[in-house]
Amino acid sequence: MKKVEPKTLTGFMELLPNEQILFNQMKEKIQKVYERYGFLPLDTPILEHSEVLLAKAGGETEKQIYRFTKGETDLSLRFDLTVPLAKYVAKNYGNLSFPFRRYQIGKVYRGEKAQKGRYREFYQCDIDIIGDETLSVVNDAELPCVIYDVFRELGFDNFTIHINNRKLLNGLFESLEQKENAVEILRIIDKIDKVGKTAVIEELKKLNIEEEKIEKIIEFITIDGTNDKKIEKLKEMKINNEQFNNGLEELEQVVKYMGLLGLPKVNFKIDLKIARGLDYYTGTVYETFLNDYRELGSVCSGGRYENLAEYYTDKKLPGVGISIGLTRLFYKLNELRIINANKKSIADILIIPMTENVEKAFKLCSELRKININTEIYLNDKKLKAKLKYADKLEIPYVIIVGDDEIENNVLKIKDMRSGEEEQTDFNSENIKKIIDK
Amino acid sequence: MKKVEPKTLTGFMELLPNEQILFNQMKEKIQKVYERYGFLPLDTPILEHSEVLLAKAGGETEKQIYRFTKGETDLSLRFDLTVPLAKYVAKNYGNLSFPFRRYQIGKVYRGEKAQKGRYREFYQCDIDIIGDETLSVVNDAELPCVIYDVFRELGFDNFTIHINNRKLLNGLFESLEQKENAVEILRIIDKIDKVGKTAVIEELKKLNIEEEKIEKIIEFITIDGTNDKKIEKLKEMKINNEQFNNGLEELEQVVKYMGLLGLPKVNFKIDLKIARGLDYYTGTVYETFLNDYRELGSVCSGGRYENLAEYYTDKKLPGVGISIGLTRLFYKLNELRIINANKKSIADILIIPMTENVEKAFKLCSELRKININTEIYLNDKKLKAKLKYADKLEIPYVIIVGDDEIENNVLKIKDMRSGEEEQTDFNSENIKKIIDK
Repeated sequence: MKKVEPKTLTGFMELLPNEQILFNQMKEKIQKVYERYGFLPLDTPILEHSEVLLAKAGGETEKQIYRFTKGETDLSLRFDLTVPLAKYVAKNYGNLSFPFRRYQIGKVYRGEKAQKGRYREFYQCDIDIIGDETLSVVNDAELPCVIYDVFRELGFDNFTIHINNRKLLNGLFESLEQKENAVEILRIIDKIDKVGKTAVIEELKKLNIEEEKIEKIIEFITIDGTNDKKIEKLKEMKINNEQFNNGLEELEQVVKYMGLLGLPKVNFKIDLKIARGLDYYTGTVYETFLNDYRELGSVCSGGRYENLAEYYTDKKLPGVGISIGLTRLFYKLNELRIINANKKSIADILIIPMTENVEKAFKLCSELRKININTEIYLNDKKLKAKLKYADKLEIPYVIIVGDDEIENNVLKIKDMRSGEEEQTDFNSENIKKIIDK
Repeated sequence: MKKVEPKTLTGFMELLPNEQILFNQMKEKIQKVYERYGFLPLDTPILEHSEVLLAKAGGETEKQIYRFTKGETDLSLRFDLTVPLAKYVAKNYGNLSFPFRRYQIGKVYRGEKAQKGRYREFYQCDIDIIGDETLSVVNDAELPCVIYDVFRELGFDNFTIHINNRKLLNGLFESLEQKENAVEILRIIDKIDKVGKTAVIEELKKLNIEEEKIEKIIEFITIDGTNDKKIEKLKEMKINNEQFNNGLEELEQVVKYMGLLGLPKVNFKIDLKIARGLDYYTGTVYETFLNDYRELGSVCSGGRYENLAEYYTDKKLPGVGISIGLTRLFYKLNELRIINANKKSIADILIIPMTENVEKAFKLCSELRKININTEIYLNDKKLKAKLKYADKLEIPYVIIVGDDEIENNVLKIKDMRSGEEEQTDFNSENIKKIIDK
């Protein structure tokens, strides 16, 4: 028979079992934290009407989207979890309680240019809080606590949540009559850490911005010190712009509440340069960096938006949300060996029957499962050596051999496959649990 | 602004949060059982090369598949989890340990005719055991134990796993020289419980099958009694066909091992009528019925196949697997009110701050989360009544109000929202845990 090459699409992550175990552990940890904060689960379809998904989109999104027709229906694969959320909330408005707090962990699709570490199918792990008409700014302070708990749970200490408010940037540019240059200015100032102040000033000059305005911009983005100090300096700038002062007040509130909510001061800081795209966020914005691995870029981002679902409903639905791009995060952490996919088996114990009299081995197996020990029984007719090799290759931590002698004497040996050590016990599952729990 | 109607595609399940909570609980229970048996997790892409997915397919599959091109690539959405598994095993053969035991829980896509309870996007929850060259028939006996544990975990007692072996049917038809009529015969005998023996005989006559052959077929499918009795009667039929006798031996083995593995006798039975499609399964086949709800059809099916990945590799990879169509199962159970989506919140406790002095409320909240109590804090500026209404609507089990008095006196009231009862304690999270754990 002519064979088809068993290949996976470029840009689609497909893991070996040991990597998948680790990936799932990370995913479950994130989910657990989201649930600990009381976020409700959602699971919307991966396919939607193109008209719905693209109600707002434009530019890059339209180019990257997987869109096709089946029969007469124009379909697209979702490219994020926010647009489906907007549709969902607009559709189910009457059946939801507000603030509506939901999490969704699922795959999204973007036909990006193939390159290392860029995926076309990837997991997003999102939470959002949606208000009906209004949503207190205190919510903006709670999300960084979720970020904090997530990354702690994932095993990190040294990370910083950067926080800013889009109204500051927008207000500043407005007050400097630079609204139409906003995109360019943001692009330039974003590089200041890399290229230095002088280079940034040179680039800004090319936009024909007056010198004193450039000074203001530089003054703004180079504000430093503690968070309190930064707030103080921002006030001292005396920018006469309503939006700016609104943003400043919000930022001050959010930072205050982040402290009150117990977020350690070393894990967050005001960063006046971050903007997170241009047309979406309207207030607080977040980025999160693993300080030892800055090359990863932001590992969790998000922010506040004025109106979630304006393309579908007249209801005003302000919200705030964050997203973790888990597939890329996993890839990077794994590549840099920050995480280690060293668990190769789901089973904790492998039982190897070495006699035709398999009843006791089977019974033990089902009793171990009953007390929630993941247990596998080797059911194939092989030599002991082959059976042990299987346990060894999968690195199943414990092996129990059940032969005629063991049955007759009611004595079992539990072999720790890492140390090679053996311990004796009987066929009682609780006794076995005690040994492996040690 | 002109609004786009926020509609979801027909045939795509999208649940309200209370339903989603229940759905996820069921999904997690299935996953937990699969892991308890040591199955390894996989998560293959939803999109694949059409050439790969359709290497074997034909007929209905080709018609139903979501297939399209992006750029120059011919893509399809997977229509099951078995073909991607075949690709995966062929592709990663050298990196896997055999028998390779994997589970996968994920969405699959079939553009079926829209009708109630039929979904175009639905979850399959699969396990398969893949051997390298050979795979002992004892594995066929272990899968029913997994089915048993899953449905027990889901809260069912009264269900029966029906088991058969395709070699019996194939061998019987072969011995009667009716191989070319197999499809038709299977279709006809499948109805015997509904239409009765006489009608089946009439229909078989229309196929121009000799009377004594029809008698043999009827004798075969009406064999009754205990499993042991059925095996005995099958032997007494003295069908002189190698395949038949092979199948009989396998069935006897599988039934014997199912008993030894501890599966209660009331939960499985030999059912000589079941066949599960025609060209795929080659040995043991399973169907599972909830006896109080036979109208659901089989809720978990599967079987043994000779060669998983013959379209991709020369390696001979026999396997055995089962699949639960969770989306349809959920829909049916929910529709019949066999399950009840009565949990509306993920949070166990709602903390309501009633003072500007929010620090203690926040601190309590984060301490409750630290001891794994899902806790929400109401962060919006509303009247107490509105806040309580929120807790009420979401049916959050416990509410704690934190006002100035509570802080000053270090006394909290925990209100059980179901009974309306209140209990007093202090700000200690462990004390609160004790109250809600009661």
